[in-house]
Amino acid sequence: MHLDDLETPVLTVDLDVVEQNVARMAAHAQRQGVALRPHAKTHKTSEIAALQLGAGAVGLTVAKVGELEALLSDELRDVLVAFPIIGARPLSRLLARADRVRISVGLDHPVAARELSDAAAAAGRTVGVLVEVDTGGQRCGVLPGRPTVELARAVAGLPGLELRGIMTHEGQAYAARNRDELRAVSLAAGHAMVDTAREMRQAGLDAAVISVGSTPSAHDIAEVNGITEIRPGTYVFQDYNQVRLGVAEVRDCAATVLATVISRPAPNRAVIDAGTKAVGADRHMILAEPTVFGLIKGHPGWLFVRASEEHGVLLRTHDLDRWNREEVSGDVQGDGGGDLHVGQRVEVVPNHICPVVNLYDELAVHRGGAFSGFQSVAARGKSR
Amino acid sequence: MHLDDLETPVLTVDLDVVEQNVARMAAHAQRQGVALRPHAKTHKTSEIAALQLGAGAVGLTVAKVGELEALLSDELRDVLVAFPIIGARPLSRLLARADRVRISVGLDHPVAARELSDAAAAAGRTVGVLVEVDTGGQRCGVLPGRPTVELARAVAGLPGLELRGIMTHEGQAYAARNRDELRAVSLAAGHAMVDTAREMRQAGLDAAVISVGSTPSAHDIAEVNGITEIRPGTYVFQDYNQVRLGVAEVRDCAATVLATVISRPAPNRAVIDAGTKAVGADRHMILAEPTVFGLIKGHPGWLFVRASEEHGVLLRTHDLDRWNREEVSGDVQGDGGGDLHVGQRVEVVPNHICPVVNLYDELAVHRGGAFSGFQSVAARGKSR
Repeated sequence: MHLDDLETPVLTVDLDVVEQNVARMAAHAQRQGVALRPHAKTHKTSEIAALQLGAGAVGLTVAKVGELEALLSDELRDVLVAFPIIGARPLSRLLARADRVRISVGLDHPVAARELSDAAAAAGRTVGVLVEVDTGGQRCGVLPGRPTVELARAVAGLPGLELRGIMTHEGQAYAARNRDELRAVSLAAGHAMVDTAREMRQAGLDAAVISVGSTPSAHDIAEVNGITEIRPGTYVFQDYNQVRLGVAEVRDCAATVLATVISRPAPNRAVIDAGTKAVGADRHMILAEPTVFGLIKGHPGWLFVRASEEHGVLLRTHDLDRWNREEVSGDVQGDGGGDLHVGQRVEVVPNHICPVVNLYDELAVHRGGAFSGFQSVAARGKSR
Repeated sequence: MHLDDLETPVLTVDLDVVEQNVARMAAHAQRQGVALRPHAKTHKTSEIAALQLGAGAVGLTVAKVGELEALLSDELRDVLVAFPIIGARPLSRLLARADRVRISVGLDHPVAARELSDAAAAAGRTVGVLVEVDTGGQRCGVLPGRPTVELARAVAGLPGLELRGIMTHEGQAYAARNRDELRAVSLAAGHAMVDTAREMRQAGLDAAVISVGSTPSAHDIAEVNGITEIRPGTYVFQDYNQVRLGVAEVRDCAATVLATVISRPAPNRAVIDAGTKAVGADRHMILAEPTVFGLIKGHPGWLFVRASEEHGVLLRTHDLDRWNREEVSGDVQGDGGGDLHVGQRVEVVPNHICPVVNLYDELAVHRGGAFSGFQSVAARGKSR
């Protein structure tokens, strides 16, 4: 069976490229002397988790207990749940796994710490805690410096908890407009973390782990002296966001969506059978560029400008200026654009691969186009 | 068991509200003398399909063969696949169902017609065809008038196909800025369809079915004399887009996501455990308003302004002006905003409910808050 025999839309993964991405990040972490703890949300599959662990990852990062449950294996010895677990039910599920795997939880609020402490003490377990620091992403996290020290002190005083250090998700890296900005943002986040850990130690608190995480920042931030761990996720597959941020090439994008042209309703328009159910609805991160839903590989003349659930609408690039100026109210009569025909297959590099993986029950795995089978997306939909 | 006992995020559906929405649309269709063929993509569940069919729907609309396969039942006698089916494999799956259910396919290209004809003829079956007309949505569809007549003539001449009429998806209705515009757009689409059908009949072609579809246009377009069928989907659950378009009230929104506040990192910011994996990534349709990812029901002081996969970020409304002017670079020190606490549950009305349903394996069904069980989202992920 060949990739061309698969019905579309289908999410394909080139294992040669995955292995290369895994090896590169592992080598980078080793060179910088930091531990690598990949975020499993990108692939959500046991087989690829095993690849990462086999290449020297110290463990995995997950966001939800359901992801941990789905990806448990004998090889998985250490997990960071980088998300505050609130509520008796998810906490009891979490604690039920503490006999199989060493668990740390990232949290940023006294209530989360107290709930985790109560659950751990009740279960007779000890769970590690990393205090989540907001280094600029303005999502979760306490501010660096004193606020972090104060929460860390509270954690250290609670039964059932072991303060292991601090973590951040420097998601602000995605707003960088060029490599210089990306480097500056990454280094700033790293320094804020190291400075905060120093304050903790001066206060007599443990800060063995200084964990940071995001694919675009992973290269630069690992240089910061004192960082102990990086948690990139997307690197394993890469995606169009990473390409445009300048940290990956299109050839590094291991996971792509195969789609079929189902209509050519106008000379400048083609419609494919991959909409937001197939390529996700995440817009790209570069605000100055026109909105697209992914790259149509090998067809630079076409832009993926609109998506509804099942339809992806491609427009010819040479109409783009007018499209941007909102002058394209009807269809522009262009030069024919006959290079996509109904029934033709195209390959889409999605903007953001993680939520795309979450849309599929299985990955169609291949090496350079030679189809080798399906892998179950074991942690798909595990948002609890 | 109560809804409050369910772990979050969870997609809940109030069956009382569903039944009211189903009954209302059925009554509307009956009053206007048009057939109702709901698009099943909104709910993707056998139980709710049965409700619709029981209330007088003539059949269902689906987009993909996989949805048809998942929702087959003895009650389902007639299906429109409102999507061109291209390729031998999906066509053979489609034809394999032709003994159980009367099938029509919407298509807009001679290649799609020829492939369907070949497959039908080879299977010794007759499949109905509705020619898809572009009444302004600029997605799929041939233009009204002569282009439609020409494709219809080609369809009528192909073996295995029975020309049954025309269809459109007047998705342009979603761009309406007020009720007057919505009505004007809806009526214009309806008239274009009826005029085109008249041209077809004058050319000696069959146009028994004039099928239109979208929830916001469903009210007005059914008035157009000659329309025979409406295909709304979203009406069954409604959503925040429909509320803002003025065609539903918040109390009509049957499907909501229960989430938990997991962090209060700043006075003006709350974080919930429902990000794009739980509420979808679809932006709302009203360009003049600030981007949100849904309505936080009962908390008008909070706006759902950002979402990553697992995190939903809420900001206090009173900071909104500054947020819009992009002056909110750090956290605004506001008036405390203590009305959401860590561990508190909130209910989110998503912008666009259809892709949200596609993220869940099951619906948590209740009546006015009294939990009654789970329904399987049988057609989740069926994008082929």
